[in-house]
Amino acid sequence: MEKIKIAIIGYGNIGKAVELATQQTPDIEPVVILTRRSPDDIKPATQGLKVDTLQEAEKYAEQVDVAVLCGGSATDLPVQGPMMAAIFNTVDSYDTHALIPKYYQAVDQAARKAGNTAVISTGWDPGLFSLMRVIEDSVLPVGTHYTFWGPGVSQGHSDAVRRVKGVRDARQYTIPIEQAVEKVRSGSEPGLATRDMHLRDCYVVAEEGADKKQIEAEIKNMPYYFDAYDTRVTFISKEEMEKNHSQMPHGGFVMRGGRTGEGYRHVIEFSLKLESNPAFTASVLLAYARAAHRLNRDGQIGAKTVLDIAPGLLSPRPPEELRRDML
Amino acid sequence: MEKIKIAIIGYGNIGKAVELATQQTPDIEPVVILTRRSPDDIKPATQGLKVDTLQEAEKYAEQVDVAVLCGGSATDLPVQGPMMAAIFNTVDSYDTHALIPKYYQAVDQAARKAGNTAVISTGWDPGLFSLMRVIEDSVLPVGTHYTFWGPGVSQGHSDAVRRVKGVRDARQYTIPIEQAVEKVRSGSEPGLATRDMHLRDCYVVAEEGADKKQIEAEIKNMPYYFDAYDTRVTFISKEEMEKNHSQMPHGGFVMRGGRTGEGYRHVIEFSLKLESNPAFTASVLLAYARAAHRLNRDGQIGAKTVLDIAPGLLSPRPPEELRRDML
Repeated sequence: MEKIKIAIIGYGNIGKAVELATQQTPDIEPVVILTRRSPDDIKPATQGLKVDTLQEAEKYAEQVDVAVLCGGSATDLPVQGPMMAAIFNTVDSYDTHALIPKYYQAVDQAARKAGNTAVISTGWDPGLFSLMRVIEDSVLPVGTHYTFWGPGVSQGHSDAVRRVKGVRDARQYTIPIEQAVEKVRSGSEPGLATRDMHLRDCYVVAEEGADKKQIEAEIKNMPYYFDAYDTRVTFISKEEMEKNHSQMPHGGFVMRGGRTGEGYRHVIEFSLKLESNPAFTASVLLAYARAAHRLNRDGQIGAKTVLDIAPGLLSPRPPEELRRDML
Repeated sequence: MEKIKIAIIGYGNIGKAVELATQQTPDIEPVVILTRRSPDDIKPATQGLKVDTLQEAEKYAEQVDVAVLCGGSATDLPVQGPMMAAIFNTVDSYDTHALIPKYYQAVDQAARKAGNTAVISTGWDPGLFSLMRVIEDSVLPVGTHYTFWGPGVSQGHSDAVRRVKGVRDARQYTIPIEQAVEKVRSGSEPGLATRDMHLRDCYVVAEEGADKKQIEAEIKNMPYYFDAYDTRVTFISKEEMEKNHSQMPHGGFVMRGGRTGEGYRHVIEFSLKLESNPAFTASVLLAYARAAHRLNRDGQIGAKTVLDIAPGLLSPRPPEELRRDML
């Protein structure tokens, strides 16, 4: 089997998970990790896997089929996305929903100029959840859409709590409200306010002598992040935080209730329950790396999203086998 | 807006539902119903909609963008699929899983020769469920797949019961066993025997003087259809059958439990709860009719399945809008 050769760009949570995920994909192998840090500081899990600096990326243009961009959406990807798409086929998990059109354009331009294919905003949301939103909306045009997130750790909300004065560490769990999910499942297409859909559950390590009442009030009233929700704040010790809150589970539900002719009601539900958000995201990234490689071989260059990619391209199995065994 | 013009081929449960479904798709309009029956016997729901015989199909080649084939898989589609693909772009819900490769080939040949695009085996299984099986298998390569069907009416099993001596009418509901679904949801990847996954629930109207014990035994021991399952048989009156069992609800679950690096477990679940199987199938057929039209305009001819079609092609919304609002 000819293997798809990938470069792992950035070696944080996602980068490490991508490296591990290649052990489950016999048709994909990592050939280099590229990092902004000093390569000597990085110890890959794969024996003998090369590590080099990001500046040396062009050196690997010929050896690499797809670069998997594992940086963050806030500052890394807006720069690295277009830059890497000028050198490699790429796949990334850019997730700043509001800025996707702008990011798409920047990456598209760079990729087209270089004849590369760049799959942006994969993972699960954006990613599989986006896919489901579009499919559900297309097959049930008259209806109501719902996305619930969690139970899981929200990085953005955890960071917001950490910025509160007197907070030493914090973890915020987004929890979908079960009664709301059940109402949607019933097919009744309920109207749901923000507060009806999710609970925000915060675990906080306070600095010594900090005013806990004040911290709790400040969190609960924080605009945009917390003020529209019911928020629970629990103070715990540093030890308890390390022991019970070091994992990054996540997941959620994409649901649609809809009606067809003669008033028949239908409910479509897609859900994920993930023990590790980065591990699952990495696994999705590899499936779309496979697709990026195939699209490029097929001459389909430029930026692509999950909406542009036929599902069969994600699978290592040949089309005849998919039709025979999985259709 | 330029509308996609469809022909409805066959006017049974699915054909009628397709006609109604066009009322929910402003970009699609029916221009003719083609039938094997006498056109005079058909009263379309749409005022003024033309009805003609199937033999006259070629007359409509120029006016029709896509023919929606609404016949059955046992005898209609094996003939009509290739025949219509030689005249029109088509979409169908061919669902004899074991014969799909053969059907694909016959339709592909006819469609290619004529420069048409033929989307086969859409609907929900095969169809959306197939899509989910492939996506789930691709993003979680190490894991276990489960498909549960129901609660819903199985046409094939109902027919099998009706063939038992002394049975006047019958309806068979396939019921997924909740404990099995819960075990899969827990992420434990349980081993499940046929009997563990589904219950078969039969409602039977017996002929006068028939031996009910004998009927019940014959159903429960019927090879392939019932012997591997726990089966419940309830005798009811003709009136009760008409009153309580005239609907065709269905649905089911496509689930995968899988593991990524470091032993993290993940569960993906896709489920449908449908008040009317034909109404939902019709709604899916129209989304894929839209895709067939677009693929053909793009020069992509031959037979296609849901696995070959980028999800964005299903939506009436333009790509920029999808990226902005739904990604």
